[in-house]
Amino acid sequence: MGPLITLTTDFGLSDYDVGVLTGVIWGIAPGARVIDLSHEISRHNVLEAALLLERCTPYFPAGTIHLVVVDPGVGTQRRLLAARLGDQGFVGPDNGLLTPLLQRAQAAGASVEIVCLDQPRFWLPRVSPIFHGRDIFAPAAGHLAAGVPLGDLGTPIDDPLLLEFPQPERTRSGWRGLVMHVDAFGNLSTNLERRHFQPEQGIVIDLLGRRIEGLVRTFGQGHPGQLVALFDSSGKLSICVVNGDAAVALGARVGDPIEVSLTDVR
Amino acid sequence: MGPLITLTTDFGLSDYDVGVLTGVIWGIAPGARVIDLSHEISRHNVLEAALLLERCTPYFPAGTIHLVVVDPGVGTQRRLLAARLGDQGFVGPDNGLLTPLLQRAQAAGASVEIVCLDQPRFWLPRVSPIFHGRDIFAPAAGHLAAGVPLGDLGTPIDDPLLLEFPQPERTRSGWRGLVMHVDAFGNLSTNLERRHFQPEQGIVIDLLGRRIEGLVRTFGQGHPGQLVALFDSSGKLSICVVNGDAAVALGARVGDPIEVSLTDVR
Amino acid sequence: MGPLITLTTDFGLSDYDVGVLTGVIWGIAPGARVIDLSHEISRHNVLEAALLLERCTPYFPAGTIHLVVVDPGVGTQRRLLAARLGDQGFVGPDNGLLTPLLQRAQAAGASVEIVCLDQPRFWLPRVSPIFHGRDIFAPAAGHLAAGVPLGDLGTPIDDPLLLEFPQPERTRSGWRGLVMHVDAFGNLSTNLERRHFQPEQGIVIDLLGRRIEGLVRTFGQGHPGQLVALFDSSGKLSICVVNGDAAVALGARVGDPIEVSLTDVR
Repeated sequence: MGPLITLTTDFGLSDYDVGVLTGVIWGIAPGARVIDLSHEISRHNVLEAALLLERCTPYFPAGTIHLVVVDPGVGTQRRLLAARLGDQGFVGPDNGLLTPLLQRAQAAGASVEIVCLDQPRFWLPRVSPIFHGRDIFAPAAGHLAAGVPLGDLGTPIDDPLLLEFPQPERTRSGWRGLVMHVDAFGNLSTNLERRHFQPEQGIVIDLLGRRIEGLVRTFGQGHPGQLVALFDSSGKLSICVVNGDAAVALGARVGDPIEVSLTDVR
Repeated sequence: MGPLITLTTDFGLSDYDVGVLTGVIWGIAPGARVIDLSHEISRHNVLEAALLLERCTPYFPAGTIHLVVVDPGVGTQRRLLAARLGDQGFVGPDNGLLTPLLQRAQAAGASVEIVCLDQPRFWLPRVSPIFHGRDIFAPAAGHLAAGVPLGDLGTPIDDPLLLEFPQPERTRSGWRGLVMHVDAFGNLSTNLERRHFQPEQGIVIDLLGRRIEGLVRTFGQGHPGQLVALFDSSGKLSICVVNGDAAVALGARVGDPIEVSLTDVR
Repeated sequence: MGPLITLTTDFGLSDYDVGVLTGVIWGIAPGARVIDLSHEISRHNVLEAALLLERCTPYFPAGTIHLVVVDPGVGTQRRLLAARLGDQGFVGPDNGLLTPLLQRAQAAGASVEIVCLDQPRFWLPRVSPIFHGRDIFAPAAGHLAAGVPLGDLGTPIDDPLLLEFPQPERTRSGWRGLVMHVDAFGNLSTNLERRHFQPEQGIVIDLLGRRIEGLVRTFGQGHPGQLVALFDSSGKLSICVVNGDAAVALGARVGDPIEVSLTDVR
């Protein structure tokens, strides 16, 4: 089977922009398998797209190429990148989107190769200054899928722009974190992870005037409507309402602070 | 070509959950063809998903595997199933979702085989208690597509949970039914079907204070804005506004009653 | 690889209608590659679908078949068409949807072949009078992808219904055009194109009480929040707010007039 290409954009699904990316890719790499990760990234929200890639890309097979077009800087001097980050590929603007892929590759001691897309012979013949997704990025993903070596597409760089994900802070009694993402079910995932806690510790969470004592392992341990905390499917501490919507119930949004107090359980 | 897998969930399209299912499937069965039926099932609405399967699955070729993740019980003791129901496959929670596939297979006298997914060697290495779709169901669909025998994935069962679809009731003058589904065009489909009527009978329909006399065969037989009744593309009696939205016009919702009076036409 | 089929409909994504099209196609042409262009066309809006095809189809490889189901006339006597228009194929109702493909083929001097789908042996066995997309159009696309000659599917015609796209008018000082489309970012594209202007001319645009002097080449040339005009990625004159939403900012909609005054720059 041909290589796998994932698409992530902030285009929404009501316009033609998404389909045309696949058309361009298939014009160059007819055997590629193309899959939508999400086209509902909030407009120009690079952080949201990077969080999605962080959660999603570990589940894709080696050789997958992730084409990501969340590009508030289109038409400015921002660079256009393609990269091999361990066993996964990336194509997109130089605005930090590749950060989670790069960090994982580095943590695994895997090799990294990043190029700046500056070879117009691999672009569409006419490039609109406002749709590099169609005219430069999608062709780059197609050429990679068709077997063009990464190094042919552009000039190597080693200083990609990186995102700094907000890190939780130590407090006297535990941690202060942030709501990082609100999913479609209204679950609030935070920047606190399993590694910030020790199994034997008691946990009390304060958030937007509400208190949660202890964690549950699954929704089934709470009763419908109960506000609970658990580690979500990506290992993030998350605040949820069983069979309900925590974002609505608490009026919560991305960036809201969360206080965690830890107690030694005897 | 590889086997066909359909995806039906209540995940919505704004999150990463949908794409990751295909990533997991393609990691196991690179040749599978994957298609979205719908990811806009109302949250936790098992009945709505089952109605969609009832309408849709007859149009898929033999060998298709339907992966359905509408799973309000995730993290409870509900079982996880895979099944062969006549010539179609099913993977999903044991909450009645397979009912329409099972009924059709039984009506056709076809063989049925259902297993409870209890073989962790076919799951992802780490299973989140809140995302069995990614960690157990998608791998099961992938392994089936890759040729693993159904019986290897789990232990046979013969008591799957079944849904009871509300049936219309006989009345003195005809039938009392229910609105079962409101589609994106605002058409109201009911639990009354072609088989409940005889061609020579006259029909009067009362619904939410409005009366419709007789059926049309197609929208083209009414004038724009007219409230009409017809048999929809799945053979269900449906209430529609020509070039309009019956749900808005009548303030109708799922569960609303519909009264049908039959008269002998001489 | 098998032939490429694009899908464009006004079905929305909350129902089963989209997935079933692919199921029917794959039942007939298992090797076809199927891609969604958009299912969010405004209901019954033939012009909007035609504009999408005009922008999108030039980017698809030769041999692509475009299946378009925006069909307010379903169930009336409107004809059902399949066509070869230069190197691209079309399947859909005879309501003008093929206009942009036909015009491009004619402009290129390419051959054109159009048939009326009147051969029931290529339809599904049971045809619902309200879902020709599933029962006639999708099978036609599938048979074309599987290699059935166009001429077998129906009787040749040479009088397809054509859309007349509103054309800009010359005024004393320049052009009077129309907003033709509002995209998901709130950008307003008009029926004025690059060919209506000369490079050396100065341009002043009046729209909904606002004035824009001169064009920018890309968003990066404006500051965030600025109202700008530029040629969009399809070469249409477009009104945009940098990092913002021009439709909201101006209260603009499809059909709003735009006045362009041209001045000779010395």
